[in-house]
Amino acid sequence: MIGEVQGVSEGDSFSNRQELHDAGVHAGTQGGIGGGGESIVLSGGYVDDLDEGDVILYTGQGGRDQNSSHQIAAQELTRGNLKLAQHYNEGNPIRVSRGSQLDSPYAPKGGYRYDGLYRIDDFWHEEGKDGFLVYRFRFVKLGRSTSEILDTPTKSDELKFKSPEGTTHPGRAQIYTSRVIRNSAVANHVKEVYRYKCQVSGVILNTPTGPYAEGCHIKAVGSPHNGPDTVNNVLCLSPNMHVLFDKGAIAIADDFKLLGIEGELTVDPHHEISIEYLRYHREHFYTGE
Amino acid sequence: MIGEVQGVSEGDSFSNRQELHDAGVHAGTQGGIGGGGESIVLSGGYVDDLDEGDVILYTGQGGRDQNSSHQIAAQELTRGNLKLAQHYNEGNPIRVSRGSQLDSPYAPKGGYRYDGLYRIDDFWHEEGKDGFLVYRFRFVKLGRSTSEILDTPTKSDELKFKSPEGTTHPGRAQIYTSRVIRNSAVANHVKEVYRYKCQVSGVILNTPTGPYAEGCHIKAVGSPHNGPDTVNNVLCLSPNMHVLFDKGAIAIADDFKLLGIEGELTVDPHHEISIEYLRYHREHFYTGE
Repeated sequence: MIGEVQGVSEGDSFSNRQELHDAGVHAGTQGGIGGGGESIVLSGGYVDDLDEGDVILYTGQGGRDQNSSHQIAAQELTRGNLKLAQHYNEGNPIRVSRGSQLDSPYAPKGGYRYDGLYRIDDFWHEEGKDGFLVYRFRFVKLGRSTSEILDTPTKSDELKFKSPEGTTHPGRAQIYTSRVIRNSAVANHVKEVYRYKCQVSGVILNTPTGPYAEGCHIKAVGSPHNGPDTVNNVLCLSPNMHVLFDKGAIAIADDFKLLGIEGELTVDPHHEISIEYLRYHREHFYTGE
Repeated sequence: MIGEVQGVSEGDSFSNRQELHDAGVHAGTQGGIGGGGESIVLSGGYVDDLDEGDVILYTGQGGRDQNSSHQIAAQELTRGNLKLAQHYNEGNPIRVSRGSQLDSPYAPKGGYRYDGLYRIDDFWHEEGKDGFLVYRFRFVKLGRSTSEILDTPTKSDELKFKSPEGTTHPGRAQIYTSRVIRNSAVANHVKEVYRYKCQVSGVILNTPTGPYAEGCHIKAVGSPHNGPDTVNNVLCLSPNMHVLFDKGAIAIADDFKLLGIEGELTVDPHHEISIEYLRYHREHFYTGE
């Protein structure tokens, strides 16, 4: 079940994993990622986890030595990792609980605490501290009022072709967010160089107020990637290709050959593109060959 | 010039329009929309304006009787209105000033006050209080720290093929936003009905974590449209077609024939679509025949 659990409030404590399971907060008594990926428990199992309270960098599952908790093999985009990635795609809220073993100022003193709903803001893969590929998911806390509004239980499996009810008056919530401010002059410059034509697909979207394209950062600007907001890190893409690029369905080789799709990137001689950032994107986001 | 003006801070007062002009905050001493659309002055000229402080519904220019300030003809997407629409497309910040004649709790006691940067969140057309078509722009205040970060003056005309500098460390700002919480179960249901195939273009975007599509609200959910978050108000679209639909480049007739693009909307027999909302979208957002 996705979202809040009836009868459980943010901040509620549980003595052990069994209690957490019985309350319906997190299925199972072992894994950090719950059955369908609707919940996670942070309990200090992964050396690559990073807990900043409202933002959590969470390491995916697999490849770990049971005794030392170190990585001994690469993780794969399967099982729990794939479930989380799918919730990211669908924008679903995820229940987050913390255990006392967690090495974080946000860990409870004892047992486990349910800490409310987070959404997955982004995910990628990288070499972890132990030298093996790990999947990383960035969780961002949803405002408390948001959690309340998202309270409605959804049972998508049962519903299938029975429509969910929805709401005629979607709620409005105050959400305090930290986001990267981008300089629109940089993106606009790149778009103008290409006259709003997509560098991957060649598409131009014409609207009543002029052509539309998006400035796509090659090396993502959010933490922990911290790519720069500069012309050599921005591509002019249609929204479709922007999605495929950000999700790692397509990438660009050092010689501008497209990967994951036929063809070659259109590059204007006035536009210098960083090969280093193209590589970073391939290494962290691209899942093909 | 787009963005903050050197030497002028949010909250600064000016005795009259001439001073506002001389300080570089707002070009000209008459119009509500500055020369290139980089600034607006709210001074109570339009009966359709609505000032909620951090959110402003601003009426475009044209069609107004000089003496009564009432609409006597339809407005057009030209001059200042077109400029604002283009800034909306490019995501540029707009300087907002208020005059004492404004009928609003946020008006200054006397003269004019510079109230900082806003972005245009959406725009559309509708029948105004006087019975003629007016353009409406929804302005949303940027956080003060955001304004500071966007401080860099941009001179896109001079630059052309000289790249803007950009920034290697994009700033991070806390922004307090009010946004509509959508029930992802509704959008996900519609996407599943169409198996993530765009109802307009037939495109399916395949990603490493499964196909990707977007739930597009027909009657917009934001204020003042207040469309419902229900299955009969949601389409399954590719990001490209979502942009074209939201920007009014395309629309859908009562018989599901596409307007502004060849073809017909794909409609699954299990998906009931509201004809009333399709009409609302055509009347408020579509700019074609």
